[in-house]
Amino acid sequence: MTTPGIFKIQAVDGLARCGQYWTASGSFETPNFMPVGTQATVKGLTPERLKEIGTQIILSNTYHLYLRPGEKLIQSLGGLHKFMNWDRPILTDSGGFQVFSLAKLRKITDDGVRFQSHIDGQIQILTPEKVVQIQEALGVDIMMTLDECLGYPATQLAAKKSLELTLKWAERASAARSKKETLAFGIVQGGMFADLRKYAASEISKIPFDGYAIGGVSVGEPLELMREITKISAENLPDDKIKYLMGVGTPIDIVESVALGVDLFDCVMPTRCARFGRLFTETGHINIRNSKYKEDSLGIDPECDCYTCRNYSRAYLAHLLRANEVLYIELASLHNLRFYQRLVWRIREAIKVGYFKKFADEFVRKQKKDEEC
Amino acid sequence: MTTPGIFKIQAVDGLARCGQYWTASGSFETPNFMPVGTQATVKGLTPERLKEIGTQIILSNTYHLYLRPGEKLIQSLGGLHKFMNWDRPILTDSGGFQVFSLAKLRKITDDGVRFQSHIDGQIQILTPEKVVQIQEALGVDIMMTLDECLGYPATQLAAKKSLELTLKWAERASAARSKKETLAFGIVQGGMFADLRKYAASEISKIPFDGYAIGGVSVGEPLELMREITKISAENLPDDKIKYLMGVGTPIDIVESVALGVDLFDCVMPTRCARFGRLFTETGHINIRNSKYKEDSLGIDPECDCYTCRNYSRAYLAHLLRANEVLYIELASLHNLRFYQRLVWRIREAIKVGYFKKFADEFVRKQKKDEEC
Repeated sequence: MTTPGIFKIQAVDGLARCGQYWTASGSFETPNFMPVGTQATVKGLTPERLKEIGTQIILSNTYHLYLRPGEKLIQSLGGLHKFMNWDRPILTDSGGFQVFSLAKLRKITDDGVRFQSHIDGQIQILTPEKVVQIQEALGVDIMMTLDECLGYPATQLAAKKSLELTLKWAERASAARSKKETLAFGIVQGGMFADLRKYAASEISKIPFDGYAIGGVSVGEPLELMREITKISAENLPDDKIKYLMGVGTPIDIVESVALGVDLFDCVMPTRCARFGRLFTETGHINIRNSKYKEDSLGIDPECDCYTCRNYSRAYLAHLLRANEVLYIELASLHNLRFYQRLVWRIREAIKVGYFKKFADEFVRKQKKDEEC
Repeated sequence: MTTPGIFKIQAVDGLARCGQYWTASGSFETPNFMPVGTQATVKGLTPERLKEIGTQIILSNTYHLYLRPGEKLIQSLGGLHKFMNWDRPILTDSGGFQVFSLAKLRKITDDGVRFQSHIDGQIQILTPEKVVQIQEALGVDIMMTLDECLGYPATQLAAKKSLELTLKWAERASAARSKKETLAFGIVQGGMFADLRKYAASEISKIPFDGYAIGGVSVGEPLELMREITKISAENLPDDKIKYLMGVGTPIDIVESVALGVDLFDCVMPTRCARFGRLFTETGHINIRNSKYKEDSLGIDPECDCYTCRNYSRAYLAHLLRANEVLYIELASLHNLRFYQRLVWRIREAIKVGYFKKFADEFVRKQKKDEEC
């Protein structure tokens, strides 16, 4: 078995790269997209379904699993893979983002973050060390270090202070690691300031992580700014390491970020949009709630090969959604996630044959209706 | 292909029978249990899942499909089988029960029933003829005739009047049939009065239906009374025809009703109970919400062979339910429906070898914790 943490780049096309990354639960190809399984389940889909659509790695969440059912319980039952019946790689987000988006009464100190659980109101404390311990107990393949996720907009001073804290926490997280098979990624913060991002990327690169992530984007900033910050962050990270853009994004975001050198993505968009009725197609999304689909005998996307498109009409999906039927969630999520998996597969194939720019231009042109949901 | 409507009894054990019934979409074995797919979907399960657990026939609902999305839409899309991607037999309930349980401002006349839709408040009229037309348009394999479903308790006079109306409607439904491949079952009513049931059964038997159903039980009456009414209804129906007990019941109900000669069942119990946390096992149900299952590494039922039991712990299911995760519904419904399918399979095998009474006694003894949810 190849050592966990090895990243082999097999082809480069402009800044875009195609490669393979090894973990203790096997490898995944890059660029890749991780479906989000926040609470130890990708909403509505079994692990078999995820494999059927080509999923190689999923993301779960430290904050949520720590609060419920608790990492010790999961550990006692054999770890997160066994608990949720998923034997391929798992990456867990550190919980930094969730502490800032979900928890109440949070108070950040140099030591860590104190907050009130959004589930039962209990006071909890997370430190960089504790977040490492939780993820090691969960037995995940890749852990993220605790970071402070800044809102948008923020002043340069606040961004500077925040990235310094994140860097300090990253040092402590690195020092706290006790299992070498649990890989760890450091996170670049720095708000929307190019010079801070450049500094943060070069500083985090000095800590020996198994990969590096770009955090704190897609927090409300304009699209052009997100691209610029992604670019400066990515180009200041070491090229021989995997680069992960956290919480991004639309199909167009993925294509355009791969063009900036990003290797790995996660986003709730395909599953969340599915539940709201937004379904992705080659020519942009459709909203299945639109009354024009009520009698439409076509599948969601004529170009899609997923189970849903092979077997069900838009009219049936429109009916299930109106009737508030739970099967809708499975069928719609399956389609949207298959769309993302087909997208990263096509991106990889395009990079391998030096055709990425043409593929990207053509894809973006056709996705003219794409927008956030 | 064997002609739709043919019922071959292969083995008899006491009053219990084991046989096979043919429809235009193929045959099913009896005794059998139909999962309920009210709105053209068995809540949370794909057709492949239903087949995986041995489902041979499902039930859907005329009232619901008529109101939404409408039988004409379904017909224009190729019929109910294609719409919901289910190619095995489908039986539809007539809507009689739903008019009485869901609709508002209902008014019954000799002609039919006038009511207000529970979805949009529109005034609707269903007649015996229209209910036949709707089900023929849906393209189902077996249709139920419109009946009046009496509440419990009811006076003998009301029960008499109601069964007479149901008989008249059955005559009209029979006369209204235009497609011989759409089989039709008549329904025995008569409240909780043995003599009325006997009369209703012998009268409905005079109308040439492809099978006969016992309706109006499990409406709040004591268990002993339900058994008595089932018995008198079943024994006064022709033995060479299939006998279907509508809306029943618990695992024990099924075993004890097979002993009275019943061949076919449907009930929301396995799927509805699953959603509420009640999961069936060989020794009775468990309530997965009970805190003792939070850390339980066992599967739901050590004797079950379903996907859920093969892959997930009670602790994981307890977590999914607490976390309000939609995957819980699929996993729990799958298990409960597999329990019912294994039960009818075991009943059939027991009848074939003349072992049914012993099987039934043993099963009921072990199910000591069984109760309605």
